[in-house]
Amino acid sequence: MAASHPSDALAGVSRTIGRIPVENISSVARIGLGDPSIIPLWFGEGDVAAPAFIGEAMMRAVEAGHVFYAHQNGVPELRAALATYLTGLNARPVETDRVAVTASGMNALMLCVRLIADAGDNVVVVDPVWPNIAGTTRLVGAEARSVRMDLGDAGWTLDVGKVAAAMDGRTRGVFFASPGNPTGAVIPIETQVALLDLTRARGAWLIADEVYNRLLFGARSAPSILDHAEPEDRVLVVNSFSKSWAMTGWRLGWIVHPPSLGPTLAMMVQYTNSGVATFIQHAGVAALEEGEPFVAWMRDYCQAGLDIVCDALERFGRVRMAPRPTAGMYAFFEVDGLPDSRAACVTILEKTKVGLAPGVFFGPGSESFLRICACRSPESLGEAMGRLAPALA
Amino acid sequence: MAASHPSDALAGVSRTIGRIPVENISSVARIGLGDPSIIPLWFGEGDVAAPAFIGEAMMRAVEAGHVFYAHQNGVPELRAALATYLTGLNARPVETDRVAVTASGMNALMLCVRLIADAGDNVVVVDPVWPNIAGTTRLVGAEARSVRMDLGDAGWTLDVGKVAAAMDGRTRGVFFASPGNPTGAVIPIETQVALLDLTRARGAWLIADEVYNRLLFGARSAPSILDHAEPEDRVLVVNSFSKSWAMTGWRLGWIVHPPSLGPTLAMMVQYTNSGVATFIQHAGVAALEEGEPFVAWMRDYCQAGLDIVCDALERFGRVRMAPRPTAGMYAFFEVDGLPDSRAACVTILEKTKVGLAPGVFFGPGSESFLRICACRSPESLGEAMGRLAPALA
Repeated sequence: MAASHPSDALAGVSRTIGRIPVENISSVARIGLGDPSIIPLWFGEGDVAAPAFIGEAMMRAVEAGHVFYAHQNGVPELRAALATYLTGLNARPVETDRVAVTASGMNALMLCVRLIADAGDNVVVVDPVWPNIAGTTRLVGAEARSVRMDLGDAGWTLDVGKVAAAMDGRTRGVFFASPGNPTGAVIPIETQVALLDLTRARGAWLIADEVYNRLLFGARSAPSILDHAEPEDRVLVVNSFSKSWAMTGWRLGWIVHPPSLGPTLAMMVQYTNSGVATFIQHAGVAALEEGEPFVAWMRDYCQAGLDIVCDALERFGRVRMAPRPTAGMYAFFEVDGLPDSRAACVTILEKTKVGLAPGVFFGPGSESFLRICACRSPESLGEAMGRLAPALA
Repeated sequence: MAASHPSDALAGVSRTIGRIPVENISSVARIGLGDPSIIPLWFGEGDVAAPAFIGEAMMRAVEAGHVFYAHQNGVPELRAALATYLTGLNARPVETDRVAVTASGMNALMLCVRLIADAGDNVVVVDPVWPNIAGTTRLVGAEARSVRMDLGDAGWTLDVGKVAAAMDGRTRGVFFASPGNPTGAVIPIETQVALLDLTRARGAWLIADEVYNRLLFGARSAPSILDHAEPEDRVLVVNSFSKSWAMTGWRLGWIVHPPSLGPTLAMMVQYTNSGVATFIQHAGVAALEEGEPFVAWMRDYCQAGLDIVCDALERFGRVRMAPRPTAGMYAFFEVDGLPDSRAACVTILEKTKVGLAPGVFFGPGSESFLRICACRSPESLGEAMGRLAPALA
């Protein structure tokens, strides 16, 4: 019998997996792993931990015996709390049978893409965008087809005609995030409705990423397609506890879906991870029911952080950026003389000990952009922008 | 524009997803949902919660700030603890760079299948087996090709020749579980090595499910292919904290993989769920480092439970079963006059308020079998077997 040799394992992965680049934002971050002098502005994660009452609710759930298997679509308490929360947040009610709990917003998105697309299909992705929608689309062997928003004096805007032009007979869905990551752009509800009209007419799905919906400055929440879609429309809305409740390390998210898909999603969850840790779901109930003051604080914290970051960037002569974001936690900008964002991030990291995310991962056309996460204390951001001045000014 | 109508959503799922049955063990269990008089022996879950020190370790991790994003392959502390644990358990050392933390054993298995198989490929699955390996294989559009173990006077045995005969040019992997679920059968190490020789010769992967490896009665651990495979062999070993440490609701597992695949698995985790809740990983460290007395207790608890269950089954005149399992937590048996396990489980549930799992989900040829989970208190199992007597005796 032939024995295997070292290169065999990597050569033996599936064709689909072998085609997906392993590089991402973490690849840059790993260069600085474990160096406490680095100010990490690369990930979509702040320096704020979830408030203590959420951890206390989790511990009470453990003590109450919520440590066994739970329903694949989520524990009834969390599904009910999400339905109540969403019904209070938006203009139209959301019933419990439209809510599926997931092991993060990423997991929600993965399930949505796997639900609708096969190898050879495509999903039209509005960008600049978080790299993971393209990654998870590739994971099913499908193509993520870029439609770039236009950057003008009014900031980032979406031309729905470009989305329509990018769709073909293998287009199974259109993905957009509003407010956007990395742009912070809020897609007007009229534009979202035009996307819904388009996907309805083509028999495609509309996937809306609303992970940043509570971080719209000076408002309760960003406009949602949930207010205009019918329950049985081919519409999937993904969200997460990570940003609004500072629960990044908790891995908890949800999908709002057509009620007829509940059993299908349960089946998919069964064969993906068989559900979310039960006591974490109870922590999510506490976040929803008692977390509104924290969410408001988080929104203001991000806005204050972005003010510090943008004040500095606007003083830096080489920086070009859109009007200040009105939502989210990111500044996304270009720097004259730094056309290669990956190389720029490595150089900046080495020279300034500030970690930035390279735009190359945010879609075609964004190769020269850099992203800063501003969900951080004024002291830390002030220090970071001071360190960055020699590199960017 | 055409508006969608109610049937549109379900009709709009991908071809792959549309082909996967939504029915599973939970479909039967849902009939009795919320009825406290039911004794639930259907799932692979006992009535024992994880010991308190594990929850306390989790809470200390939350308080210590382990609440942010972690590396996709797992926090260094847990990867190191797993490497130490596995090195102590088996005859050959396992290095940290071969360990990836996953969000359950199911999630580990899903990642393994996605890693190696595409739509149109197949995985040869040794059964009777836990239904989810077939489910997750279908999730990538691949075929789960059944090779049934033989049931004789010596219990369940595997004919490797049948595995070889089932493989073809699209076979990407061979899956086996030892000790088995639902059979409890331990596949002798010589047979496992023969499977390794076979998959090496064919360039296929060998996936070993060792979730029940610590529940071998009277022994420390079941024999492992890790003692015979080279690190870069096309071998993937999946495991979970669910059974040995009673952490079903905690959703924590791991993969032992060739070191060259670490970055590939990190990429896949990034686009699947972006990792496991950070503080749960620290609970896993405590389980590994302080949990050996509990694991030994759990093994004896399952053995005692199986003794009660098998004592009763052997008295029931209509029951046919293999010699008593020497591992695991299940009895798997047939009953004269009950050829349809799905119908039998529904009838038995209604008449006796005892929940059993129908064999129909455990592979072709198992349609007339029933599974009982015996990881339960003597009192509860005694009551259950008493209730079952009129239906099975």
